[in-house]
Amino acid sequence: MTEIPAEILEAIALDANGLVCAIAQQHDTGEVLMQAWMDREAVARTLESREVWYWSRSRKKLWCKGETSGQTQALVDLRVDCDGDAVLLLVDQKGVACHTGRRSCFYRAARDGRLTEIAGVVADPKMLYGDS
Amino acid sequence: MTEIPAEILEAIALDANGLVCAIAQQHDTGEVLMQAWMDREAVARTLESREVWYWSRSRKKLWCKGETSGQTQALVDLRVDCDGDAVLLLVDQKGVACHTGRRSCFYRAARDGRLTEIAGVVADPKMLYGDS
Repeated sequence: MTEIPAEILEAIALDANGLVCAIAQQHDTGEVLMQAWMDREAVARTLESREVWYWSRSRKKLWCKGETSGQTQALVDLRVDCDGDAVLLLVDQKGVACHTGRRSCFYRAARDGRLTEIAGVVADPKMLYGDS
Repeated sequence: MTEIPAEILEAIALDANGLVCAIAQQHDTGEVLMQAWMDREAVARTLESREVWYWSRSRKKLWCKGETSGQTQALVDLRVDCDGDAVLLLVDQKGVACHTGRRSCFYRAARDGRLTEIAGVVADPKMLYGDS
């Protein structure tokens, strides 16, 4: 178990599953890249290593962003919201944040009653995650 | 029940509580303002009215952002992430997003093992919500 400084730990309100909502934003452009979840250990490792860790709800395990794809997130600043149930991660995203090969996961916009793709694939997912 | 266009509704993956994670971002500056939750009706009303609606988990009711405080969010763009369990709301925030009177709810940063306030109060909460 990695330690979190007490003042920071106290400010974070984990939900019934022990998780806090995490939003990753590119620190210099302001682009919102992705939303995921962190448990206490993910917060601790992120603060200590300055590389972003999340908790995967589907795989039920900690993962370091980019551990498979190489598309890492270096932490620039971690911010906590007013009621402590969300954190904003200012990061320096290497390559793409989305597993589809797009820079941001938020690449579809609701416009004129349709869902429109507003960002293209810039990295081949097969290159990021392998063929199999 | 307000209608959501089918293509948009299908893309949104509500969780076990019927909610989707919502992130509000100021459309022109890129500032992440707040994180909250929407149910299907909140998404529908937001798309229809172009004012942002949320579902309050504590009060268990729909609320239109700013209905009490006047600090409304006009919708500029609604984006859906790759797996549909988060939406990014590009908004034009009137005044302040945070109930503490700060522009953004993410006003505390984890720096050097401490939690540091990085944004001041710019609107008196008593003026926003009344004294009582």
